[in-house]
Amino acid sequence: MFSGKPQGKRPSHRTILLLLLLQTRPSKQRTTTFRFLNRCLRNRTIPMASSIFTHCHYSSSPSSLAFRLHRHPFHVPPTCLRFSFLHSSPASSHVDPLAAMVTESSAKVIDGKAVAKQIRDEITAEVSKMREAIGVIPGLAVILVGDRKDSATYVRNKKKACESVGINSLEANLPEDSTEEEVLNYISGYNEDPSVHGILVQLPLPSHMNEQNILNAVRIEKDVDGFHPLNIGRLAMRGREPLFVPCTPKGCIELLHRYSVSIKGKRAVVIGRSNIVGMPAALLLQREDATVSVVHSRTSNPEEMTRQADIIIAAVGQANMVKGSWIKPGAVIIDVGINPVEDASSPRGYKLVGDVCYEEAMKVASAVTPVPGGVGPMTIAMLLQNTLISAKRMHNFE
Amino acid sequence: MFSGKPQGKRPSHRTILLLLLLQTRPSKQRTTTFRFLNRCLRNRTIPMASSIFTHCHYSSSPSSLAFRLHRHPFHVPPTCLRFSFLHSSPASSHVDPLAAMVTESSAKVIDGKAVAKQIRDEITAEVSKMREAIGVIPGLAVILVGDRKDSATYVRNKKKACESVGINSLEANLPEDSTEEEVLNYISGYNEDPSVHGILVQLPLPSHMNEQNILNAVRIEKDVDGFHPLNIGRLAMRGREPLFVPCTPKGCIELLHRYSVSIKGKRAVVIGRSNIVGMPAALLLQREDATVSVVHSRTSNPEEMTRQADIIIAAVGQANMVKGSWIKPGAVIIDVGINPVEDASSPRGYKLVGDVCYEEAMKVASAVTPVPGGVGPMTIAMLLQNTLISAKRMHNFE
Repeated sequence: MFSGKPQGKRPSHRTILLLLLLQTRPSKQRTTTFRFLNRCLRNRTIPMASSIFTHCHYSSSPSSLAFRLHRHPFHVPPTCLRFSFLHSSPASSHVDPLAAMVTESSAKVIDGKAVAKQIRDEITAEVSKMREAIGVIPGLAVILVGDRKDSATYVRNKKKACESVGINSLEANLPEDSTEEEVLNYISGYNEDPSVHGILVQLPLPSHMNEQNILNAVRIEKDVDGFHPLNIGRLAMRGREPLFVPCTPKGCIELLHRYSVSIKGKRAVVIGRSNIVGMPAALLLQREDATVSVVHSRTSNPEEMTRQADIIIAAVGQANMVKGSWIKPGAVIIDVGINPVEDASSPRGYKLVGDVCYEEAMKVASAVTPVPGGVGPMTIAMLLQNTLISAKRMHNFE
Repeated sequence: MFSGKPQGKRPSHRTILLLLLLQTRPSKQRTTTFRFLNRCLRNRTIPMASSIFTHCHYSSSPSSLAFRLHRHPFHVPPTCLRFSFLHSSPASSHVDPLAAMVTESSAKVIDGKAVAKQIRDEITAEVSKMREAIGVIPGLAVILVGDRKDSATYVRNKKKACESVGINSLEANLPEDSTEEEVLNYISGYNEDPSVHGILVQLPLPSHMNEQNILNAVRIEKDVDGFHPLNIGRLAMRGREPLFVPCTPKGCIELLHRYSVSIKGKRAVVIGRSNIVGMPAALLLQREDATVSVVHSRTSNPEEMTRQADIIIAAVGQANMVKGSWIKPGAVIIDVGINPVEDASSPRGYKLVGDVCYEEAMKVASAVTPVPGGVGPMTIAMLLQNTLISAKRMHNFE
């Protein structure tokens, strides 16, 4: 039996059955049959077999079938099959799997680095405007406990970013073996300090500390990470406004906005349900009137689910988990994953890849964030933005 | 053209195409063809037309096609088509639309009234145990502002329910024109009163009052409604525990548990995203490892989405919105809607119906909650449970 999987994409049931039906038609009549069938499918009506099979005809040569599958299986103007997320509709989306077979589009790259730069420039302008107007400089305090190399790098980058936009950055480096109380003391100090508008505790904390106690100690008005349950609750509730939106999911949505991807009424699938990314991302998409499904480790059919999405936010931390076959043609993909994989050709011996197989995604999707250079730079930009928002709010500065 | 809609159920694309393909086979060979095609579909492989259409044959008589659609379109033992949510799997679920056509099963009725009674009995036992052990009686305070008939009825029912299980009920009836401050005074009074373990503000409040200010004034330890953003935030976050779970969604999940409906890994669709039911219900289902999608007014294809669900929670407040064609055969349906519709035969001139068309659901689903007598009685039972939980927590009573 011949297995029809062009470029690793698996045809949908509808496609398989449609192709088989079309096989029963003489090639000249396939275009009209295809359109006729699509009309029936849209109206959900069952035509009389007689109205289609005026006479039957099929190919008995596998090679010729294979050939017709890889090229245009029948003559239909590609335009009527090609799919764009900007004009998606239930009807048109039905045609996607076929579109996947007959189009070879290459997706747009969503340049997070460029957008983040743009946002930092905007923040720089606002910070100096604020300083000149009321003499206030936004301040961000970062607490780092222990000596994890990656954490140290993140903190250093945040510090650099603050300086680049004119935000004051304070830093507390505590030893690995410090007590919860010592950390809490620093937090209450920053809670009281009027020059501090944002407090950030670098995670993960040493295992002997209670992360909840420590995060809950941060004054909600200074919780620029937006991880406080009260913030999350307000994010989930209609008619409520969170003080801060968590930086990474906020960055994902900002990318969609800056690339004018319409969210309202679109099918969105969030892969992963972490408190830091997946869950708040789903809440944000829902606030923007997307129809949201959350796919996670217990989901029985993640591929089938994900293939329905116009917008995919992948945040699971599994290298290249989302293949081309998971993606609906024309979908927009925000890849939050940053996974190191072995790479002999690289001096470091490894390279960073996302949760989505980039090469395959580029063939099926309409827009994709690269890794690195996609969501990564946005996270820090959003942290700066939250710090600015906090300073403005505390000083009633518009 | 004949439109194949047995009992208002609309066939899926897969069904339409499958039936058409089967029409091309002599009736004797349809069972084998059907199984063969299903195998291909499961494996997502495209068979050679030649391997199916050894020769073509179809009916040219509309009446005979119609006949075969309404009865068994081809001879397959019904057992291999019948579907049960207890053994659902991606593979078996593919067969549903056909099962919908060839089986005439009647769903199990989920008796919320009986379950609520059972829970009230359990609470009664615990309340008296607590009273005997530490002499504490749980107390619920209800604040009613204005003279809405429906609100008055709800409050009266809650009062009755409290008495029935031995919980003290306090009540404050304020006039329609009372000020926000007066309401806030009552709340702070109850906040301080050690004999009050739960405070409930009956909604809706008069339009001149700020609902948020008033609800936020209730001490979170006594927020038995569970509507406080901090509670909702904890509900949304993994590894966090809310103090209280909102009563109606809690009741929905409790019904699933008491009828031992497995939730983990199942597809769940929540219709409606209100702060009071839809949103927290979705969060609860996700906490139980369901794969959750939220359908709302902006969803472009609510029917298609809902038809994928193993578990449906409908909470939109639209009479009979969910038709049989929206339901996957074997799905479990929790209907939160309570909608009055004209009914000449009833002395009151109207009757109450849910968001789901009960008669149609009973033909397709495996279990359905009736309206009334489904979720309704559970809501009050959960309110009593939350009040008991609160009293136990405040007095460290296990």
